[in-house]
Amino acid sequence: MNTYSSKIDLEARKKVSALFREKFVNIVDSLFKNVEPEMLIPKRTLSNTIYDPVKKLLLLGDEKLSRKFFDMHESRKFMQTILMASIIYQALINNEYPTIRDLYYRGKHTIRYRSYTGKIEEENTWDEQSESDSVLRDIEVYTNLLREEMLILSKEKGKVVGNMRIRSGDDIIDLSKMGHGAYAIEPTPDLIEFIDVDAEFVLIVEKDAVFQQLHRAGFWKKYKAILVTSAGQPDRATRRFIRRLNEELKLPIYIITDSDPYGWYIYSVFKIGSITLSYESERLATPEARFLGVSMSDIFGDPQRKKKPYLTETERRNYIIKAKEMDLKRARELKNYKWFQTKEWKREIDIFEEKKSKLEIEALTSKGLSFLMDIYIPTKISTKDWIE
Amino acid sequence: MNTYSSKIDLEARKKVSALFREKFVNIVDSLFKNVEPEMLIPKRTLSNTIYDPVKKLLLLGDEKLSRKFFDMHESRKFMQTILMASIIYQALINNEYPTIRDLYYRGKHTIRYRSYTGKIEEENTWDEQSESDSVLRDIEVYTNLLREEMLILSKEKGKVVGNMRIRSGDDIIDLSKMGHGAYAIEPTPDLIEFIDVDAEFVLIVEKDAVFQQLHRAGFWKKYKAILVTSAGQPDRATRRFIRRLNEELKLPIYIITDSDPYGWYIYSVFKIGSITLSYESERLATPEARFLGVSMSDIFGDPQRKKKPYLTETERRNYIIKAKEMDLKRARELKNYKWFQTKEWKREIDIFEEKKSKLEIEALTSKGLSFLMDIYIPTKISTKDWIE
Repeated sequence: MNTYSSKIDLEARKKVSALFREKFVNIVDSLFKNVEPEMLIPKRTLSNTIYDPVKKLLLLGDEKLSRKFFDMHESRKFMQTILMASIIYQALINNEYPTIRDLYYRGKHTIRYRSYTGKIEEENTWDEQSESDSVLRDIEVYTNLLREEMLILSKEKGKVVGNMRIRSGDDIIDLSKMGHGAYAIEPTPDLIEFIDVDAEFVLIVEKDAVFQQLHRAGFWKKYKAILVTSAGQPDRATRRFIRRLNEELKLPIYIITDSDPYGWYIYSVFKIGSITLSYESERLATPEARFLGVSMSDIFGDPQRKKKPYLTETERRNYIIKAKEMDLKRARELKNYKWFQTKEWKREIDIFEEKKSKLEIEALTSKGLSFLMDIYIPTKISTKDWIE
Repeated sequence: MNTYSSKIDLEARKKVSALFREKFVNIVDSLFKNVEPEMLIPKRTLSNTIYDPVKKLLLLGDEKLSRKFFDMHESRKFMQTILMASIIYQALINNEYPTIRDLYYRGKHTIRYRSYTGKIEEENTWDEQSESDSVLRDIEVYTNLLREEMLILSKEKGKVVGNMRIRSGDDIIDLSKMGHGAYAIEPTPDLIEFIDVDAEFVLIVEKDAVFQQLHRAGFWKKYKAILVTSAGQPDRATRRFIRRLNEELKLPIYIITDSDPYGWYIYSVFKIGSITLSYESERLATPEARFLGVSMSDIFGDPQRKKKPYLTETERRNYIIKAKEMDLKRARELKNYKWFQTKEWKREIDIFEEKKSKLEIEALTSKGLSFLMDIYIPTKISTKDWIE
């Protein structure tokens, strides 16, 4: 046994491996009883992915698929699912911390068998990681466990600083004592315990460099904030961490991204989840997250609601980037998502399509970091000038 | 004044802004004396970039360019250099923390002037960030200051854990008390103070996910290591941090990357520096860094020195990825670099070209994390099976 793992991990292993046994014991039972083994797995298809307007989340519906051993269409998938489950279980009881790439390698081998015609045939358990990832997702929905709870690790980009202490592993960490650096969030954020928090809101900054600037200037101290960066598209751990800050600590979540469809989509992933992985939304998405900016009306103002722009004519000339055809195409796609069909988002996208312009957050810091820190962000929050 | 900045930053500002005044005061003097202002800037050209085989570093030679105000070829660059210097100086005395993207935006505007023919002309200070970045580099070599010392921030991917304490900003941080997370290195690593260190070596892991695995399994506790990830190509701050660990604490530096030309290049950037930015090597590169693996002879063995492979025939069949034409091309390019022309590297590249195969680190963890942690890495280090 590896005595260098944290107690929290050892406990998590015990709990999750017991759940695993419970979920898969019926397969073994079936075999002993000479009954065809079967798994009933919630369907992860688009038709079984439903946007719940009350919870404001993408959720899986009630449809289930039956994965049977003797079903020609499902037997390969059945084998892969059992293979993956056994690799994960072995890792759990052997104090391993696999990654999804590991799981792919661990299961990858060639099966030689004699076909019913008597010929020796060969078949790979899986060829591409997309195959092993797919059965991993099936196991997540089948067991109702996130992969992180199975102690499957992944690379992790999210960082945090602020007036709070957390327990992670065997340590207590004071996130207000990180110096000029920051705390890199662990890949298994459900194992974090929030100890005490003295903050009024969470600010997520898409760009790591802008996070560094605000952190260094003491934004989170001055405004009692928890400051987080996703460093681009948020990974699962950062999303789960944010969800927990909102759900358990009731902290409002504000997100600042570049002003373009790519930035809107980052917000959307935090808020709603990603479309291909809707099954995880219920745990990873934060429906109450607010898009603080940079909004099109911050740049151009909005005569419809008598809003003045934050940029002068000259600043717009110097800072604005012309939207590319790809940006416009992405905007048209986003318009199809139900959660972008509110009045406020329609207006935002309309202005974008009219002006064909985008803007980086750095354009605001170039007006002076104190403009971003002491004028733009506090004004946006105090006047509730965000988009839900 | 922003009272939320650390004392260390306030002191750094004082020191660096004084150095700035010293370096640029002669320009002002010249103007008062009605003499043409001139800057002598070390040339950053390929012909003035020299590989020093003793220091094992890419360095700038003695050639200097004269940038004059009335020189038609240099006047635009002269204007840009002075503009950039003044933006940096303003940021220094105003407690700003610009990024290079900021600097670009801050300086970007259109100059209207009457040409000698009497016509009104317009010219942008700069159009692309490549132009503002280029004069920033000139200012770095002219002042002999890294941009980080001018408190210019950037995004930062490097993480560290291990038995050491550091002072950063106003805080003392214990890097052995990060729980399951890690310490995200600050963008200005020269301002870090090493307080006490109880470690025997530094292990840099290219891949964040593998770093997470080794960290979680307690590698650094068990083997008294400082564990670092660059999360892909290392940024400047991670490189400077590593250089300081080696130079000031005399810790040996081992690097593990994927076994392919891309991984070799990551090692090369840590060790020698990047070719386009040779002026920074003397501060950022670590000539003593060692390539621990994964080497081609780890995969295939090497009959020439009776080395057995770490992988079995079956494992090779399952894990090896066929090299693409792009990989082979990259290998041919690397062969032209002087520091890849040692006997050991030639052998490494020869095996690669013969086998046309590459391997990810994850292939080793899929043999079991304890294989990587307790067999592969310790054996490689204790038998000195690395490449310099």
